[in-house]
Amino acid sequence: MTFEAMWHDLAPIGRTASGGYFRQPFTAAERECHAWFLTECARRDLTVHTDGVGNVVAWWRPEGAAGPGVLTGSHLDSVLDGGAYDGPLGVVSALAALDLLRERGVAPSRPLGIGVFVEEEGSRFGSACLGSRLATGALTPAAATELRDRDGVWLADAMAEHGLAPTSSDLLDGVGVFLELHVEQGRALIDHDAAVGVASGIWPHGRYRFDFTGVADHAGTTRMEDRHDPMLTHAMTVLAANKQARLQGARATFGRIEVVPNGTNAVPSRVTGWLDARARDEEALTALVAAISTQAQDRAGRDGTSLQVTPESVSASVHFEPELAARLATEHDGGAWPVLPTQAGHDAGVLSLAGIPTAMLFVRNPTGVSHSPHEHAEMADCLLGVHALADSLERLLR
Amino acid sequence: MTFEAMWHDLAPIGRTASGGYFRQPFTAAERECHAWFLTECARRDLTVHTDGVGNVVAWWRPEGAAGPGVLTGSHLDSVLDGGAYDGPLGVVSALAALDLLRERGVAPSRPLGIGVFVEEEGSRFGSACLGSRLATGALTPAAATELRDRDGVWLADAMAEHGLAPTSSDLLDGVGVFLELHVEQGRALIDHDAAVGVASGIWPHGRYRFDFTGVADHAGTTRMEDRHDPMLTHAMTVLAANKQARLQGARATFGRIEVVPNGTNAVPSRVTGWLDARARDEEALTALVAAISTQAQDRAGRDGTSLQVTPESVSASVHFEPELAARLATEHDGGAWPVLPTQAGHDAGVLSLAGIPTAMLFVRNPTGVSHSPHEHAEMADCLLGVHALADSLERLLR
Repeated sequence: MTFEAMWHDLAPIGRTASGGYFRQPFTAAERECHAWFLTECARRDLTVHTDGVGNVVAWWRPEGAAGPGVLTGSHLDSVLDGGAYDGPLGVVSALAALDLLRERGVAPSRPLGIGVFVEEEGSRFGSACLGSRLATGALTPAAATELRDRDGVWLADAMAEHGLAPTSSDLLDGVGVFLELHVEQGRALIDHDAAVGVASGIWPHGRYRFDFTGVADHAGTTRMEDRHDPMLTHAMTVLAANKQARLQGARATFGRIEVVPNGTNAVPSRVTGWLDARARDEEALTALVAAISTQAQDRAGRDGTSLQVTPESVSASVHFEPELAARLATEHDGGAWPVLPTQAGHDAGVLSLAGIPTAMLFVRNPTGVSHSPHEHAEMADCLLGVHALADSLERLLR
Repeated sequence: MTFEAMWHDLAPIGRTASGGYFRQPFTAAERECHAWFLTECARRDLTVHTDGVGNVVAWWRPEGAAGPGVLTGSHLDSVLDGGAYDGPLGVVSALAALDLLRERGVAPSRPLGIGVFVEEEGSRFGSACLGSRLATGALTPAAATELRDRDGVWLADAMAEHGLAPTSSDLLDGVGVFLELHVEQGRALIDHDAAVGVASGIWPHGRYRFDFTGVADHAGTTRMEDRHDPMLTHAMTVLAANKQARLQGARATFGRIEVVPNGTNAVPSRVTGWLDARARDEEALTALVAAISTQAQDRAGRDGTSLQVTPESVSASVHFEPELAARLATEHDGGAWPVLPTQAGHDAGVLSLAGIPTAMLFVRNPTGVSHSPHEHAEMADCLLGVHALADSLERLLR
C-alpha cells in the first residue's frame, strides 16, 4: 500500500457531503478509522498492543532490535467538521515511512512502534489528548469518569460500547523517544518556503468556561433598561477577547456557546461561552485571561448580570528537547529545516511533559487553515514529509 | 370548580423542577393542557368545536341566545421555560367568568364561546399565533406545511401524531367580537396602580434571521489578523441592536443563536442569530432593523465575514377599536381602567387584523417579568381580573 492508496482508503470515512470530517471518539466513523489502522498493521506483520482506553501501538521488532523503542504516529479523531490531515497525516506517514525503511533494507537496532492515541482533539468530552494523558498518567481514570459529552453521555458508557474503559495503561513502557509528524496548522512554513519543519515547543493553552447569568424575560414587553441580558455581556466579552489577543500577540477565541432557553422572543437567563486562549508562555496566558475576565466582569456589573469563570483544562507550555530538534533539523541531505513553535496542542506535548524525549515534524499547509473542511496539504509535500520522517526514524533507530 | 381549583389542577402540567414551563405545541404536556380544558368544558355542558389544527371553541348557547357570538379565551402553550400565566390565565379566567355569569343569572342574548388557540408563542415552529392565523386565513395551510421545528420535525408530522393537520378552518364563523384576558407582560399597570387595564393596540413585531458566514479555522494556530470569525460580527450586532433600541425607545433582542461547528477550539464557520424587534409603528420598526443591519454589514466588512438578513415573520401593528376599548375601560363600577399599548403579540391581534372587533384586558404583573419561570400575578389580582372579564362579557352579551 502506497501513501496515496492508504490516503484514498481513509478519505471517505466520516466525511460529510460538504467535505468536512466528523470522527468523534467512540463513534462509528472513528472506530472505522481504527479498524482501518489495524488492517494496515496486520498487512505489515506488526505486533499490536491496545490499552483499555483504545490507544494502540503496533511494534516492528525485527531480529537484532532491542532496548527502548522509537515511537511515531498521531491520532485519527477529528474536531467537529474538521479536515482530513490533522492526525491521520501522521498515522499514514508513519506506515509509509516504515515501508520505506524496509525497502531501504534498514536493520534497526531498536524496535519501531506506530501509535494511535484516542480523543486527541477533545471534541467530544472537552478534554484534549484524553488518550495520551490517560496513558502517561497525566489524567487519572477517576477524573476521566467525571467526563460527559454534550448529550450527557458519560465517557465510560461511550467507551463501554466498544469494550473499552477509562483505565491506566502500560502501553508506553519501553518507549525511548517519540516523533510525531503533523500537518502544520499555521503559515510559518510558507514564510520559510519549506515543505518540512521541526517543532521547538508548544504554547501553553487553556479552555475556560464563562457562565453569564441574567434574568429570563419577554423580548417585547421588557424595557431595555429593565433587562439583565447575559447575551450582551457575552457579546462584549467576545470582542474584548479578540482585542486583548491582538494587543498581546496571543490567541483568544470564543467558538462555542450555549444559551438558555435559546428562544427568539425571550431574553436569555443564561449564556455560556468557552474561551480558548493561548500565549507564548504561562505568564502571558495568565495575563491574557485576567484582562479578558476583568473586562467581562466590568460589563456584567453594567448589564446587571453575573459571571463565573471556570478553567476546564490548562496545558503547560512544552519545550521539546532542543538538541533532538536541532539534530533532526540538520542531520539530513539538503538545507536545514526551520525550527518553530506551535500554538496547537498535540499528544507529543503530553508525552514530552511525561518525560519521554519527544520531537515533532510539520508538513507545510498551503493555506494555514486547519480544524476546517478546507484544511489541506499538497501531495508532493506529504511525500516529502514521509521521506523526512523515514530519514529521521532511521537515525533514531541506529 | 373555582378559579383557584382550576389553577391548581393545571399548575403541574409541563412544569420543570426549577418552576419553568415547557408546553410546546403538539407535545405531551400541551396536549394534557388541552385535555384538561375539554374536561372543564364538559363539566359546564358547553358545545365543543375543534378545527383540524387543534384550535377549540366551546360554546354556551342558552335559550334565547342568537346571532353573532362573543368569544373570550387565550392559549395554553408556553415559550421554552416560560411562566404559568401567559395564556392559561385567560383560559382559566374565561371559565371562571362563565361560572360567575351563570351564578348571577345572566340570560345572554348572544352565545358565549371560550376559545383556545394552538402555538401562540411560536416556540416550536418559529411562527407566532400559528393556530389563530390558520383559523383566520392569515397563514395558508401551504405555508404552514413548510414549517419545521429545530429538530427538523415537520409541522404536519407533529400534528399528525394527534390526528391534526395544517388546514383552513371555519371555527371563527359566527364570532362577532373577541375579548382576550392576559397577564400583563410589562410594568405599566404598576405605574398606574391598577389591577386591570385595557389594551389600545399592539406594536408591530418582526423576527429576522441574521446569518453570519466566515471561515472555520484552528483556534490556536490561526493568527488573529488572518481570521474571518463570524462570532465577532454577531457579538457586535448584539450590542448594536441593544444600543439602537435604547436610542429609539424600541425593543431589540438577540435571544437565540446557532453556531457551526460550535467547538471550543475552532473558529466558527457560521453563526446564526435571531433578532426580535418591536417598535411603536411600522416606520419605526423598519428604521430600527435598518440601523442594526447597516451596523452589522459594516462590521462584517471589517471582519471579513458576510451577512444575510432574512425576515422570518413580521406582524403589522394592531389598533384595537378605540370605542370598544373606551367602553370596557369606563362602563363598570369603580374608577376607569387605564388604556395602554402592548409590545407583545397575541391571538387578539390576529383576530383584530382579520376584521373581528377585538379587545384585551390585562391583569397586573407585580414584577413585569414574563416569558420566564418568575412570571407572576397575585391571586387577588387574578380574581379581580375574572370579575372584570365577567362584567365586560355581561355588557357585550346584552
